[in-house]
Amino acid sequence: MKTYFYQRDIISILDFNRESIETLFEYTDKMMKYANSKLNLLNGKVVSLAFFEPSTRTRLSFEVAAKRLGADVITIVGEEALSISKGETLADTIKMLDSYSDAIVIRHKYEGVAKYASEIAEHPVINAGDGKQHHPTQTMIDLYTIKKFFNGIDGLVYGVLGDLRYGRATTSFIYGLSLFKPKKIYMISPESLRAREEVLHVLKERGIAFEERRNLEEVIEELDVLYVIRIQKERFPDPLEYEKVKGSYKVTLDVIKKAKKDLKILHPLPKVDEIDERIDNTPYAAYFTQAKYGVPVRMALLALIFGVEP
Amino acid sequence: MKTYFYQRDIISILDFNRESIETLFEYTDKMMKYANSKLNLLNGKVVSLAFFEPSTRTRLSFEVAAKRLGADVITIVGEEALSISKGETLADTIKMLDSYSDAIVIRHKYEGVAKYASEIAEHPVINAGDGKQHHPTQTMIDLYTIKKFFNGIDGLVYGVLGDLRYGRATTSFIYGLSLFKPKKIYMISPESLRAREEVLHVLKERGIAFEERRNLEEVIEELDVLYVIRIQKERFPDPLEYEKVKGSYKVTLDVIKKAKKDLKILHPLPKVDEIDERIDNTPYAAYFTQAKYGVPVRMALLALIFGVEP
Amino acid sequence: MKTYFYQRDIISILDFNRESIETLFEYTDKMMKYANSKLNLLNGKVVSLAFFEPSTRTRLSFEVAAKRLGADVITIVGEEALSISKGETLADTIKMLDSYSDAIVIRHKYEGVAKYASEIAEHPVINAGDGKQHHPTQTMIDLYTIKKFFNGIDGLVYGVLGDLRYGRATTSFIYGLSLFKPKKIYMISPESLRAREEVLHVLKERGIAFEERRNLEEVIEELDVLYVIRIQKERFPDPLEYEKVKGSYKVTLDVIKKAKKDLKILHPLPKVDEIDERIDNTPYAAYFTQAKYGVPVRMALLALIFGVEP
Repeated sequence: MKTYFYQRDIISILDFNRESIETLFEYTDKMMKYANSKLNLLNGKVVSLAFFEPSTRTRLSFEVAAKRLGADVITIVGEEALSISKGETLADTIKMLDSYSDAIVIRHKYEGVAKYASEIAEHPVINAGDGKQHHPTQTMIDLYTIKKFFNGIDGLVYGVLGDLRYGRATTSFIYGLSLFKPKKIYMISPESLRAREEVLHVLKERGIAFEERRNLEEVIEELDVLYVIRIQKERFPDPLEYEKVKGSYKVTLDVIKKAKKDLKILHPLPKVDEIDERIDNTPYAAYFTQAKYGVPVRMALLALIFGVEP
Repeated sequence: MKTYFYQRDIISILDFNRESIETLFEYTDKMMKYANSKLNLLNGKVVSLAFFEPSTRTRLSFEVAAKRLGADVITIVGEEALSISKGETLADTIKMLDSYSDAIVIRHKYEGVAKYASEIAEHPVINAGDGKQHHPTQTMIDLYTIKKFFNGIDGLVYGVLGDLRYGRATTSFIYGLSLFKPKKIYMISPESLRAREEVLHVLKERGIAFEERRNLEEVIEELDVLYVIRIQKERFPDPLEYEKVKGSYKVTLDVIKKAKKDLKILHPLPKVDEIDERIDNTPYAAYFTQAKYGVPVRMALLALIFGVEP
Repeated sequence: MKTYFYQRDIISILDFNRESIETLFEYTDKMMKYANSKLNLLNGKVVSLAFFEPSTRTRLSFEVAAKRLGADVITIVGEEALSISKGETLADTIKMLDSYSDAIVIRHKYEGVAKYASEIAEHPVINAGDGKQHHPTQTMIDLYTIKKFFNGIDGLVYGVLGDLRYGRATTSFIYGLSLFKPKKIYMISPESLRAREEVLHVLKERGIAFEERRNLEEVIEELDVLYVIRIQKERFPDPLEYEKVKGSYKVTLDVIKKAKKDLKILHPLPKVDEIDERIDNTPYAAYFTQAKYGVPVRMALLALIFGVEP
């Protein structure tokens, strides 16, 4: 079936609307049923995974998704990917992958690389994270997770905690929420790691209620969903500054005591110490379930791009 | 068919008994017949290979075994595996692999990691070598090799030569013999690299006759099977000590002249210089045949774990 | 069908004749038709890729070729491949791969390694480039590309530009032309990077007209095909020498203005700056098409080696 996704490049979650995301949810529900079968929908197709920046979780879940659908997978990763690009132009590397495969999944440190690759490649390019803003497939997983827990995305109160300035998962998640009707988004970060103006602009333009806060504790009682990412020490010009604030951006058992009973905590993983490990086994922790959805959501996306139906 | 292996973690060879190993042998015999076919017994299954310590031979033979059975394989290895574990907890890494796959094959430098992983993962975990004692699938291959050459494991005289203190292949092999009735085991090593007390304890408890020796030459005439692993220079606190003993732990043409005509030499490979290369092409050398059995034995093991029959 | 290629080692293009290369062309034409299908001709076969020297393009196109034919693929590459060979002998590494797989594709820095491997392995060994002379599968792709553009290889004027001394792609290409009847070969390089005597010897013996030149500009008007590879600065004992000559070994828009309308430029890729990027989008540039033929030519070769027909 040829939906909006058919043979499309997947660059930014902002390229999609509510309706297309809901189509993706339907396909994902179908894929969940086949989680233990080999579907032969993509037999004879080859998917390239080009990870110029390493990301084991994203890479492996794309690999499993493609293989479960019957596709073959080729991979360039880390050192090898970088040493290529040192020698030849990125354009030539992309042309090579475009010759050998039917879709290219790309991850890169720099903003705009996925878009640039999509202009060179004849086959669809899927952004598996580039720069500081875009990680559309992660956001698709995040939204699907919320949908499964709350039976919808609208009308909930969201907290997004951590590095909102450089964290591509959080920015992309906030953009993703803007396709729906959240009741409110609390954006909780240190002053220096606040979301950039362009992000706020999108929210304003789309009439999404949001508030910037410095402290999780002030808002925890209101939240239905708390999205967490790590704050990296190296983002702070002054290490003392980091030491001062770090406590406020960890999810502790103390702060969680004040939360709604149904609060769900999301995290794109890997996590380091930003969530107390003892929360892992509580009903608040949605992040391992979220990680599991990585495969069926990416299976659904690939099926939609190739126009095949389970 | 649901045998003792069905959905079981494979942590130590000591978790098995003679009967279960004989079941494995039967399955391996069947797999030998299909060595050149693609069996579709594990279609739709995904096997993760998590090699936190590199081991090309073990990894590739598991990969071939899984693929020949129709499974898909995902791999994390070396640098990548280690850099994950630096960032996130091993538990989180295992949970990720457990989400994406139906079995996890794990190798790690430290003792007990496979066991720990098996407590976290819902799917079966297979120890592909951890710490200094356990490498159950290598032992299964070793035992199968002996069974094929001698039509049985009981009643033979074994020599185990090399580093018996830190070598996981030798320790696991000795444990494996203890499931059967060897006539005698000669454990040949320098004083400082003798088997640890716990190993001797297992042998005593099971009534296995063994003797510790320093010199291969003294016992070579009695041996039916000689199991060799490398002695690593870095195990010796004093390099001079190493220089003094190293000659005694190499299998030379001279020493082999005194052996029984039917002696078989096993080695888990890779070997460096502990066996004279000219022995490679003699009937004594069983190690390349042993290496070939790596694939069918691991195919049999995977089939048993997943409860499928060729 | 059992052709000349059946179960044969592929070591040097000089082991083949015109007729066998034409058989390969026929098979490649067939493979082009199935470029988007999964053929199940090699189900149950395993192909090893042993890249002791990295080469992403060659490796990935072999991987895609094998997988499109239904084979499974195992890979050792770069650091891992090298660290193996540090520990154990190359012979033992080859024996391992020979146990696990039905064909070994090998790349190595040193001359003669593929030949040596073929003497150890029972299964066919395919040279994916070793030393300074041999890269037979690249040459097969090069010749196929010319055949598709000019409907034949005979009677054309060829220019081969760049490092003719150490470049294995160029040497192998010149050897490949010697199986046919080129009108003339211009070999264009700095004095110090001229083809070695043994190469000239082959051309003389086979009665191939050739001329050694220092400057592309002098001959550009005559050429039907220009084969380019990079000149590496580190080949020059004196960096000043390099600075003096480098301009003459770049394909610029200026020089290309004087070329025949139908000139085709080939390059094994990756390229760095030896061809002006603005040429990429002109009809002169045949190198991206040539890269695309990597997969079908290697599919054809594998099919011929295994004696299967699409």
